[in-house]
Amino acid sequence: MPDARRYFDLSSPFPMKRGGELVGARLAYETWGTLSAARDNAIFILTGLSPSAHAASNANDPALGWWEDMLGPGKPIDTDRWFVICANTLGSCKGSTGPADINPLTGEPYRLDFPELALEDVANASHELVRGLGIDKLACLVGNSMGGMSALAYLVLHPGSARAHISISTAPQAQPFAIAIRSLQREAIRLDSNWNNGHYNDAHYPEAGMSIARKLGVITYRSAMEWDGRFARIRLDSEQREEEPFAVEFQVESYLAAHARRFVRSFDPNSYLYLSRASDWFDIAEHAPKEPGGGSVEAALKRIDVERALVIGVETDILFPLAQQEQIAEGLRGTGAEVDFVALDSPQGHDAFLVDIPRFGAAIARFLAAL
Amino acid sequence: MPDARRYFDLSSPFPMKRGGELVGARLAYETWGTLSAARDNAIFILTGLSPSAHAASNANDPALGWWEDMLGPGKPIDTDRWFVICANTLGSCKGSTGPADINPLTGEPYRLDFPELALEDVANASHELVRGLGIDKLACLVGNSMGGMSALAYLVLHPGSARAHISISTAPQAQPFAIAIRSLQREAIRLDSNWNNGHYNDAHYPEAGMSIARKLGVITYRSAMEWDGRFARIRLDSEQREEEPFAVEFQVESYLAAHARRFVRSFDPNSYLYLSRASDWFDIAEHAPKEPGGGSVEAALKRIDVERALVIGVETDILFPLAQQEQIAEGLRGTGAEVDFVALDSPQGHDAFLVDIPRFGAAIARFLAAL
Repeated sequence: MPDARRYFDLSSPFPMKRGGELVGARLAYETWGTLSAARDNAIFILTGLSPSAHAASNANDPALGWWEDMLGPGKPIDTDRWFVICANTLGSCKGSTGPADINPLTGEPYRLDFPELALEDVANASHELVRGLGIDKLACLVGNSMGGMSALAYLVLHPGSARAHISISTAPQAQPFAIAIRSLQREAIRLDSNWNNGHYNDAHYPEAGMSIARKLGVITYRSAMEWDGRFARIRLDSEQREEEPFAVEFQVESYLAAHARRFVRSFDPNSYLYLSRASDWFDIAEHAPKEPGGGSVEAALKRIDVERALVIGVETDILFPLAQQEQIAEGLRGTGAEVDFVALDSPQGHDAFLVDIPRFGAAIARFLAAL
Repeated sequence: MPDARRYFDLSSPFPMKRGGELVGARLAYETWGTLSAARDNAIFILTGLSPSAHAASNANDPALGWWEDMLGPGKPIDTDRWFVICANTLGSCKGSTGPADINPLTGEPYRLDFPELALEDVANASHELVRGLGIDKLACLVGNSMGGMSALAYLVLHPGSARAHISISTAPQAQPFAIAIRSLQREAIRLDSNWNNGHYNDAHYPEAGMSIARKLGVITYRSAMEWDGRFARIRLDSEQREEEPFAVEFQVESYLAAHARRFVRSFDPNSYLYLSRASDWFDIAEHAPKEPGGGSVEAALKRIDVERALVIGVETDILFPLAQQEQIAEGLRGTGAEVDFVALDSPQGHDAFLVDIPRFGAAIARFLAAL
């Protein structure tokens, strides 16, 4: 199978925020475009919970990427101008070191022996990769969804590491509705007896738990408004229906089932648990200075040092609501940065950045053109 | 244990909308106040999915009811003036006939042999009860959540059966977001191996599935806005935490767990599946006249014959969104009824009618005072 991934060895041992360390860990990454001689045209993309480093097709891997229409020659993130890097998140299962990998100290898969993962670890690993590629300062750091939280951690922990920042549909801290959803997704996996405290295998795999987790994800990633128009009360044809009691009957149910089928065996359940919990833990306020007026999201964001920022949110996003994007934009303005805040009325909810390329692409292209 | 329930025998056989019939079925109900000599002061309450007939305390059962602050002497539904009836829903498990009851034809519990249940069956059974109590015409029919859908069915199937109607946080038809949520709740129960195609018992009970279903319910019954203020990122004390991997850590998680604990053993899982599916199936448009312009929600609502109606919705309700309450209000206006539409900004989402008695009570008291 074509594979465009390259691998970067993290410092070893790589210390983790909440204790413990990783030995011999690495990040999988892909790149598009050419790094300029001055090394000043690099854009780094931090992803959501499940994507791989394959954001778009490239010479070594022609498969469509998860942000195919956003990224490439002449596209909103124009790889004729920018050198773009996307890494698989530390703790994930698409080439970067995570719970499914062999622990070199034991010769066995980490599973739940993987150290507790925080998005600050994701940020630090990504920063090592960027530095390892010989880039002192990114032209722009892009983060969406969970990756937007990792990006805020990156910018707070490494001030001056990027000239510009694009923050998309994310949060400066996890709020209780999102925590409740993710907690329930984790519970569905943990309650699946095949999860077996992380000791599953292909024959005994927490398929039911992963399916529920993914469906709940898709429900909260999209919007009721989109579905009213898209599915209404359309039913499956009788030949599409299964005979079992309480079988799926409406199109919206089979849409969810199709999403779940594609996901459950392609993402490591333990990775899912680690990254989901890391999202709940994230609170940029932890990085505020310990002084009067510290301890707040605003005080923490004030430590970020970028010249310009674009903050994009979607009105129909119930998981990362628009108010949180406004909070990020306000906080970045407090640093003296020039901040564009764009509220889009995409109907697709949280997932809009993946699918509503007309709206998102226009905002991003406009911002990057002015850099 | 004190018990205020009385029982009404439905006609036998009682025919079901989707086929089949019930033999020897009954409804459990409670009443408050006194029926006037003219039998013209009766209010009937149709409940949401899980409540019993015990809407409020009374002489025979002093336990607090699920609408305790709404209903009683001097309360918004003033039982000094009104004779109030609340029944447990047909198909439920709080005294009315449902899947957990013995099928008199076999001597075994119905379980999944209970006939397919529609909210029209709930409506018809309720109408029989009201007629059986000697009431030709209700002063007011009240329905909230699922009960609001049953109430619309009642009014369409039995025109002229109520002078007034109070419709609360409900829907004229199930929309895909709500269907997706309920479908996932049912799936969590069905995937629990202890569900065993409906053949569980106390020792092998689908506790995990019911817990996930209930938590997902609570998440969608409340609102992100309420939780931001109520839970924020408050964590449990370390002594409250369990030692297991990925244990609950935030207050919002233990709040959900407490809700689930109270529910899982107190509601029959098969009843839950039947009532949940009945909600998905509900579409008042099925009752529209078969003529040009028929087939729509509007055309169906036009068949309702009440003099006055109060339609209440909540801006933070994600399960039964305000737009659906507006649709009901508009439809009822189309019948010539005098309709009050009240949009409340209660932060508690769909559950607001249960807890925001100041706002809901004021609207209901004002409406009833003018009857």
